[in-house]
Amino acid sequence: LEPVAVVGASGYSGEELVRLLSRHPGVDLVALTSRQLAGQTVETVFPKFAGLRYSQLAFIESSVDKIVATGARTVFLALPHGVAAEYAKPLVDAKLRVIDLSADFRIKDAAVYQEFYGEAAHAPELAAISVYGLPEIYREQIRNAQLVASPGCYPTSAIVPLYPLLKRRMLKPESIIINSLSGVSGAGRTAKVDYLYVECNESVRAYSVPKHRHLAEIEQELSNAYGEDVTVSFVPHLIPVNRGIATTIHATPADGIGLAEISQAYKEAYANEPFVRLLGEKGTPDTKNVTFTNFIDVAWRHDPRTGRMVLLSAEDNLVKGAAGQAVQSLNVMCGWPETTALL
Amino acid sequence: LEPVAVVGASGYSGEELVRLLSRHPGVDLVALTSRQLAGQTVETVFPKFAGLRYSQLAFIESSVDKIVATGARTVFLALPHGVAAEYAKPLVDAKLRVIDLSADFRIKDAAVYQEFYGEAAHAPELAAISVYGLPEIYREQIRNAQLVASPGCYPTSAIVPLYPLLKRRMLKPESIIINSLSGVSGAGRTAKVDYLYVECNESVRAYSVPKHRHLAEIEQELSNAYGEDVTVSFVPHLIPVNRGIATTIHATPADGIGLAEISQAYKEAYANEPFVRLLGEKGTPDTKNVTFTNFIDVAWRHDPRTGRMVLLSAEDNLVKGAAGQAVQSLNVMCGWPETTALL
Amino acid sequence: LEPVAVVGASGYSGEELVRLLSRHPGVDLVALTSRQLAGQTVETVFPKFAGLRYSQLAFIESSVDKIVATGARTVFLALPHGVAAEYAKPLVDAKLRVIDLSADFRIKDAAVYQEFYGEAAHAPELAAISVYGLPEIYREQIRNAQLVASPGCYPTSAIVPLYPLLKRRMLKPESIIINSLSGVSGAGRTAKVDYLYVECNESVRAYSVPKHRHLAEIEQELSNAYGEDVTVSFVPHLIPVNRGIATTIHATPADGIGLAEISQAYKEAYANEPFVRLLGEKGTPDTKNVTFTNFIDVAWRHDPRTGRMVLLSAEDNLVKGAAGQAVQSLNVMCGWPETTALL
Amino acid sequence: LEPVAVVGASGYSGEELVRLLSRHPGVDLVALTSRQLAGQTVETVFPKFAGLRYSQLAFIESSVDKIVATGARTVFLALPHGVAAEYAKPLVDAKLRVIDLSADFRIKDAAVYQEFYGEAAHAPELAAISVYGLPEIYREQIRNAQLVASPGCYPTSAIVPLYPLLKRRMLKPESIIINSLSGVSGAGRTAKVDYLYVECNESVRAYSVPKHRHLAEIEQELSNAYGEDVTVSFVPHLIPVNRGIATTIHATPADGIGLAEISQAYKEAYANEPFVRLLGEKGTPDTKNVTFTNFIDVAWRHDPRTGRMVLLSAEDNLVKGAAGQAVQSLNVMCGWPETTALL
Repeated sequence: LEPVAVVGASGYSGEELVRLLSRHPGVDLVALTSRQLAGQTVETVFPKFAGLRYSQLAFIESSVDKIVATGARTVFLALPHGVAAEYAKPLVDAKLRVIDLSADFRIKDAAVYQEFYGEAAHAPELAAISVYGLPEIYREQIRNAQLVASPGCYPTSAIVPLYPLLKRRMLKPESIIINSLSGVSGAGRTAKVDYLYVECNESVRAYSVPKHRHLAEIEQELSNAYGEDVTVSFVPHLIPVNRGIATTIHATPADGIGLAEISQAYKEAYANEPFVRLLGEKGTPDTKNVTFTNFIDVAWRHDPRTGRMVLLSAEDNLVKGAAGQAVQSLNVMCGWPETTALL
Repeated sequence: LEPVAVVGASGYSGEELVRLLSRHPGVDLVALTSRQLAGQTVETVFPKFAGLRYSQLAFIESSVDKIVATGARTVFLALPHGVAAEYAKPLVDAKLRVIDLSADFRIKDAAVYQEFYGEAAHAPELAAISVYGLPEIYREQIRNAQLVASPGCYPTSAIVPLYPLLKRRMLKPESIIINSLSGVSGAGRTAKVDYLYVECNESVRAYSVPKHRHLAEIEQELSNAYGEDVTVSFVPHLIPVNRGIATTIHATPADGIGLAEISQAYKEAYANEPFVRLLGEKGTPDTKNVTFTNFIDVAWRHDPRTGRMVLLSAEDNLVKGAAGQAVQSLNVMCGWPETTALL
Repeated sequence: LEPVAVVGASGYSGEELVRLLSRHPGVDLVALTSRQLAGQTVETVFPKFAGLRYSQLAFIESSVDKIVATGARTVFLALPHGVAAEYAKPLVDAKLRVIDLSADFRIKDAAVYQEFYGEAAHAPELAAISVYGLPEIYREQIRNAQLVASPGCYPTSAIVPLYPLLKRRMLKPESIIINSLSGVSGAGRTAKVDYLYVECNESVRAYSVPKHRHLAEIEQELSNAYGEDVTVSFVPHLIPVNRGIATTIHATPADGIGLAEISQAYKEAYANEPFVRLLGEKGTPDTKNVTFTNFIDVAWRHDPRTGRMVLLSAEDNLVKGAAGQAVQSLNVMCGWPETTALL
Repeated sequence: LEPVAVVGASGYSGEELVRLLSRHPGVDLVALTSRQLAGQTVETVFPKFAGLRYSQLAFIESSVDKIVATGARTVFLALPHGVAAEYAKPLVDAKLRVIDLSADFRIKDAAVYQEFYGEAAHAPELAAISVYGLPEIYREQIRNAQLVASPGCYPTSAIVPLYPLLKRRMLKPESIIINSLSGVSGAGRTAKVDYLYVECNESVRAYSVPKHRHLAEIEQELSNAYGEDVTVSFVPHLIPVNRGIATTIHATPADGIGLAEISQAYKEAYANEPFVRLLGEKGTPDTKNVTFTNFIDVAWRHDPRTGRMVLLSAEDNLVKGAAGQAVQSLNVMCGWPETTALL
């Protein structure tokens, strides 16, 4: 059994990690840490986990020494950006494997991090060695990574449908416009008036227009796919569901590219991927079909009236968009079947 | 008092008309009709209206003769498309004023109606004399109209932010991409599994991609504004709220047009409109601020990274997107203050 | 016009007061106060009120001197308990009329306040002169009151259906069991994790079992009705709606009392009340029929199998359960039609 | 592998059975039947199951011969009452084991069935041999049953907290009052206006007062526990969540019984039950902690003011209240660990 720790397990992503790791046959969860919750058991903090495998495990303090002392060999960091880097550095130095769910190591270019996050990159030397934890694209690099930068929720929902098409230069990159709708768990378990039930229920609103932080990550990966700098439009919206992201992408195909080529590209890229479900030219992704799963559903249309493609995706922001994808990377790193604990 | 009838008052738009007309000091609601509900009182059908002005009014059958016999001078039609035309023709012949909430008279070009609705236009001769009931654009024509084609919910949310900019040729029309998110009341009070609580709650999905019927109406009005045929992309989404549409529009400004010109155009167009609230370059429309009101909130951003504008709007699909706007037209037609019963 | 101030207008009840007073033809809202919001306009704080009557009114600081200086003759206090008393005392001394929405003056017996609120009564001398602001019961006393203690949301939903039956000694008081289900706005606009969207959505839970603070108020009024001390069971539940309380009461009728007597008692008590809608022996209160209104719907059943009555009510916790009822008291105090601004 | 069929798999309970059986290592799902869906694959009907174990399984017609021909040894019936009996009879004759999720075999007394369901019992001879499928009470009988009548959702939520106390004669049975709040999936996947999203969202309402059908089943089992006829009050409410039942029970303890005895009784009855989580004298069941699980959470309070106990429970109506409990019975019948596929 792989001894695993989760640092910062009090938020929604941390909680989801506990849920997934509880049913993972290859994992021994040796530590959960949280500054506020130290000393409390899992079932006290998360009553829903009472009666399950780790219900009696007590949270410990979030100290690197204590984490190392537990014998953990792989550590998930479910911490705010900036804080994650503080833990990642000593853990990597101690030769532990780190799967970080924050933004700290996703952005390879420190200037881009500075631009989008408004502060200096926290550990550019680690960002340099990190692997972007999207197994559908970086599976081989994840296999031997010591530090995985697990992707953001919006970026996953946009990169999965766009990457194979840009890689094959089937879209005009400057035409790409991404609209995303996210459930409220994306805002985290933080006591802010804006995320109170009454403020979110019966409410729909765009936010962070036109420059949400996740653009940094989206454009980095789309540029990698295309081989040139790609700049896109992205507008996220907050909608009253607990979980789920639905993303709608508009893009103009490259000259000579039609529906058949797009469909073929998706088949080549994803037909064998266990977590990418291709719904095709007629299917419709719906968040209710993917919540509580690690699937991302993808469908596409051609609009002969405008000549544009519409790409649609749906995922659970806490699973494929966070904890599930992180466990998927763990499975890759450990050489286990990639679907372990995720189906 | 203006004697008014509502035909087909059993759906959500009809119910909303009753709510608004109940508090209208200039109106005498003389008839509500419904095939299924004939003989029942308002308070039996809509328990929420018990104790209000028309709670004891009984529904009558939806026959033109009976409607005319009530002495109604203005008739609202809240009927499915196709059916509306059957009523509009004899009512117009009988010299009554008709405010139709269906699509039957919105589309001036019968071929376009055929293309988008999959059936022949039901009364092209009436479509020819109808006025599109968006007072912010057609106020003067509405004043003397005998037949008003009250706009659709999505079209209102898109046309209000786009019209003044296209009129001034400030946007490149081929760049326009419209994403809309609508509450479930937009689907009507119809017993279909797709709209059950359990099927819509914790669900988000795009639908009718890429050719929703409302495109016909949106493009007609945007073409009117621009003076040339305009073709746009439009993707609607169903989201779990009762009421409200949030629309996010991406468009590239014409050469030489920047944020200042856009802001100025909005001020010129709407500063004196009682129901268009300009939230400016920093505000964010949120459906919770407009539900149960006739307001449409509009904001806008310039994205220097892509050069595009993002236009944002929010409205209540049943009020500004349906019944409220129809009452606004009534106020115009009757020469009353336009906000009567609507603030 | 009556000059009116609202103190502590930043919460949900305060916001609802602004909404109702905005359409009140007899009121001139001369001041809104809030420590945090001083200097900001209504439309900045509550974007939904942009374009309405008081949108440009600026919040002032919550100082008694400043309130008095505005010329207000009636002051609504929408403050936490304890804080309300601090304002009420000097305002009453200054001969202003005060309508307090907190619990500070509802409980006549200081020992009971101490027992349920865990602190000494804040101004027992004012509690002694206050009138419990339920117009259906205390209309005459409200008319000349200087200090109205506007009822709590749960108490209103329980007292309205129980009072006339206890007054007539038609129920065995020791048999009364009250279950209530409340929307989340009842918890106030306070940034607490427990009331985040994700924590309340898809969640139902009882709380404060078996001794919620509102029991003090419920029992006081039921005892007044019955003429002897009445002790009841009360269990509130939090449910995922913004607004609305549904209350289900079980009670055994007194000997010789049946459905006919109960129905007759309700008719005697409430047939002429504009805000109590009697749905009778077959109707079913539903919060969706009362939200955004000042109505309370009441229905009842007899269960021959157990011999018990079931009494059902529904109200909007922010309107009949708070701001609307307070405005109803204002109307009574000012001699206006009681439904002014409330229908 | 046990060959298993699910008859009537198009509803919410049937869908949940498919979800649970998909991850059951001891089961081979050999047939799913549905009149309307015959010929379609699981993933076509339930897109959420695409990529999972039975996604390609095609529905067959609901004919007994065809079911028997699949080699199924155990058959789940997820059919309306009345229809279930038609299938159960020939299947039992064919020596298959049947786990019925309808009410057809729950009620032992045909007169009671007639009273509550308004029609004659459909197969009283089978009701006579059926076992009520609540493993916490009837585990031994389930082990060798040929026909299991799996309990209703509300009854499970009430019987689990009440049974051990009545068995020990710790409550006065005539004092029992049960209030339940259920999510909308309890109404089934049926196209009715009452269960549309817009009709249920922002709505809370009691229904079937005072004589819901599930009373028959609740009283039968409570009478079994107590050894004498027990008659109780029961009021169900519909609340806007997809899944979950919260039940609040009021009851007076028998003379000499206090909190300590109640707590002890629960420990005796349930300390070793894997799916009953005792939250004790301070915990609070919340449906969000049990949805998508087979757990039922139970807590209790003593109210010294009234002398009553309050018993609280929460379960997922589709899991412990339907499909999960049925699989739990399957596990018992097959001699597998009772938690298989359920944790």
